[in-house]
Amino acid sequence: MPTYECYTHRGQVDAAAKAQLAAGIAQIHHEVTGAPIMLSQCIFHTLDPDDHFIGGQPAPANGVWVHGHIRSKPTGDRNKRITAGITDLLTRTLQISSSAVWVYLSELSPGDMVEFGHALPEPGAERSWFDNLPPNVHNQLVTPDHALGA
Amino acid sequence: MPTYECYTHRGQVDAAAKAQLAAGIAQIHHEVTGAPIMLSQCIFHTLDPDDHFIGGQPAPANGVWVHGHIRSKPTGDRNKRITAGITDLLTRTLQISSSAVWVYLSELSPGDMVEFGHALPEPGAERSWFDNLPPNVHNQLVTPDHALGA
Amino acid sequence: MPTYECYTHRGQVDAAAKAQLAAGIAQIHHEVTGAPIMLSQCIFHTLDPDDHFIGGQPAPANGVWVHGHIRSKPTGDRNKRITAGITDLLTRTLQISSSAVWVYLSELSPGDMVEFGHALPEPGAERSWFDNLPPNVHNQLVTPDHALGA
Repeated sequence: MPTYECYTHRGQVDAAAKAQLAAGIAQIHHEVTGAPIMLSQCIFHTLDPDDHFIGGQPAPANGVWVHGHIRSKPTGDRNKRITAGITDLLTRTLQISSSAVWVYLSELSPGDMVEFGHALPEPGAERSWFDNLPPNVHNQLVTPDHALGA
Repeated sequence: MPTYECYTHRGQVDAAAKAQLAAGIAQIHHEVTGAPIMLSQCIFHTLDPDDHFIGGQPAPANGVWVHGHIRSKPTGDRNKRITAGITDLLTRTLQISSSAVWVYLSELSPGDMVEFGHALPEPGAERSWFDNLPPNVHNQLVTPDHALGA
Repeated sequence: MPTYECYTHRGQVDAAAKAQLAAGIAQIHHEVTGAPIMLSQCIFHTLDPDDHFIGGQPAPANGVWVHGHIRSKPTGDRNKRITAGITDLLTRTLQISSSAVWVYLSELSPGDMVEFGHALPEPGAERSWFDNLPPNVHNQLVTPDHALGA
């Protein structure tokens, strides 16, 4: 149910690394929230050297920023577990210090999010939402081995 | 009063299609909210094939995501009507299945938005806000046939 | 503690102008909020002519949009002072009319923001947060003459 935007420097991540990060972020979001992996979107932005500043100075060449847009939910440490998981993923996958990592989460109301053409359900109502999708969408999405993480 | 960011794949939309989508989104926002068409901004981002993932896998080549940033307002189904309208616009204009469409809306306080150099009015106070703009801006914006949608 | 995304047209800002804007925005944010300059991030997006629309029409070639993502804080006119400061900075630096300027601020919870690999403190707890950073990060960040703005 989320979209994560990843900002990396040109040349910092190749297609394989992007795939690894996208899969890793989807997995982290799934493990923390229980939301189906199939409903995680990940988008990459490429930054040129003069596009990124920290403290009013050019940012380090290995600096990365991930900005997630997720369903709001009044739960304790959900968001901290997501940001910590992504920080760890980035440092391991990109072989960078955690000090090069920025991660933000912005929350949206489920009713303000359309995915696969359908407004999202409230948290907890995912399965019935899945079951009520039109057959062509439902069949495309529900692969029991990973889509629902069951 | 909104800004809509549109993420499409390289080669998916040409300049004419972008113009059609931008005009269509501005029209939908105007019809649902009553906000002047002139105050709708639309920005396009181009995604390369390895920039877009869904479910941890490469996204379909016809996948689109629209992320709107709009004034918050405590009204019933306003946002659902906007997201449904944009979903319909995208499927018709781009000739894609609705299952390829994602739309998110994020809400901002009017006081946190500057357009044409001026902080936005609270909802409902648009006309006096318009009337109080400096003459050079006012004249540029107010064209009775479409700017206020009157 | 913020990230500001700046959208300008291709050819509108060179590397020097970007550096000037990034430094200016970081300074404005620091002066209004007291947050350390070192914790301001600025990212530039380049818009091609057919990527930017206002009112459903192509936007003026000198149009700029700044979208800041900042820590939420229940304070009076903080955000208005930031957006006004950035509007002024853009008009002076880019020699454009204020009517070409759009600025939005989106608020996030401090716990939803990781910078330099560490979740942000609540407003007011910055100094102890700084003092508790691992030595390698702490030494990198704390330069008494500007990092804390003391």
